[in-house]
Amino acid sequence: MRAIVLLSGGLDSATCLLIARQEAGEVLALSFDYGQRHAFELERARALAARYGVASHRIVRLDYPAPASSALTDAAREVPRHALGRDRIPPTYVPARNTLFLAHAVAWGEAEGVADIYIGANALDYSGYPDCRPEFLEAFEAAANLGTKAGVEGALRFRVHAPLLAMTKGEIVAAGHRLGLDFALTSSCYDPSPTGRPCGGCDSCLLRARGFQEAGLRDPLGL
Amino acid sequence: MRAIVLLSGGLDSATCLLIARQEAGEVLALSFDYGQRHAFELERARALAARYGVASHRIVRLDYPAPASSALTDAAREVPRHALGRDRIPPTYVPARNTLFLAHAVAWGEAEGVADIYIGANALDYSGYPDCRPEFLEAFEAAANLGTKAGVEGALRFRVHAPLLAMTKGEIVAAGHRLGLDFALTSSCYDPSPTGRPCGGCDSCLLRARGFQEAGLRDPLGL
Repeated sequence: MRAIVLLSGGLDSATCLLIARQEAGEVLALSFDYGQRHAFELERARALAARYGVASHRIVRLDYPAPASSALTDAAREVPRHALGRDRIPPTYVPARNTLFLAHAVAWGEAEGVADIYIGANALDYSGYPDCRPEFLEAFEAAANLGTKAGVEGALRFRVHAPLLAMTKGEIVAAGHRLGLDFALTSSCYDPSPTGRPCGGCDSCLLRARGFQEAGLRDPLGL
Repeated sequence: MRAIVLLSGGLDSATCLLIARQEAGEVLALSFDYGQRHAFELERARALAARYGVASHRIVRLDYPAPASSALTDAAREVPRHALGRDRIPPTYVPARNTLFLAHAVAWGEAEGVADIYIGANALDYSGYPDCRPEFLEAFEAAANLGTKAGVEGALRFRVHAPLLAMTKGEIVAAGHRLGLDFALTSSCYDPSPTGRPCGGCDSCLLRARGFQEAGLRDPLGL
């Protein structure tokens, strides 16, 4: 069996990659260059794809409509720091990002005959992203099966797998560790240095540090 | 009010543009360069956007996964001729195309604060495209409202409008005519010459000719 994995290069998608590999056997990885300020994560996606022997790795350049609408695509905006746990949609939300990512995955899946799509979405820690909730993922899956030739004819039954959906960050780190993930190849920081050194202070760095602490493991990135 | 219109440059999307303009007032047009062999239609999309005074026209370059999977993106394949009315999905089907187009429209709509999206989908003539059916459009609309900040917070209620859905080609031509559409600015051929001259023999040309005949009008393209 084959699966497509959305691979950002972060801790979550890297863990998701190893879960998909275990469940599906062969994986195809799909990454996006959408003008993210932390484009260094694409270097990590390449390194992860190479290390874990994906059958194919596509990096799709996304023409994103309005960079200023997210702190992740506008270098002039502050990335959030110490806003963890506040119950609202973070400023790092990027309009309809997972809708676009999944649409590309379905198009590729249909062309390749691959029905299983893995996404490292997580609805627990740092939640509030609308496109990481199970309601959305299920609705998108339904649309994908109605809007494709393979889905309608029954050649493929698209499934969106989100194995990390209900895990804490500690559980994600533990799962990655169990599967042999080399955490040094992952990048989590929203605002890394040009050489990829994490800032250590943004919410994504703090959440990563908390995950390693909860899992009782040491982060090779030294956070 | 403002609306986003998916504008290919064909007869249907041009008619849809004028309907949206009438209903919404101000329109933003969104076109895609996805490697279609009939890229000439993008010239027509530009001309239509200019003529009908759209507030903004974006042409998004889509990195399409597998050109060989459709007769519209693989110049080595024959475009269909004289297959009209056969009850199957045509070889011009492009994997998950409307899923991708609508995903981009929703991302742009969210960034711009525009909830109304117009698509010239038609489920009657030359039907069989799974992503032109109302079931799909409704499912996608549901996913868009669940997977966006604006949708979840209630700032926008995304709606996918498909005003041509149940029209015959003759009715579409008549509607365009009523709204003052300059048909000379539209392009329908799957396989035009480099200067845009329609082949006259592909199914899209035949369907267009039938539409003008049904409407009792003369096509300025001379088909």
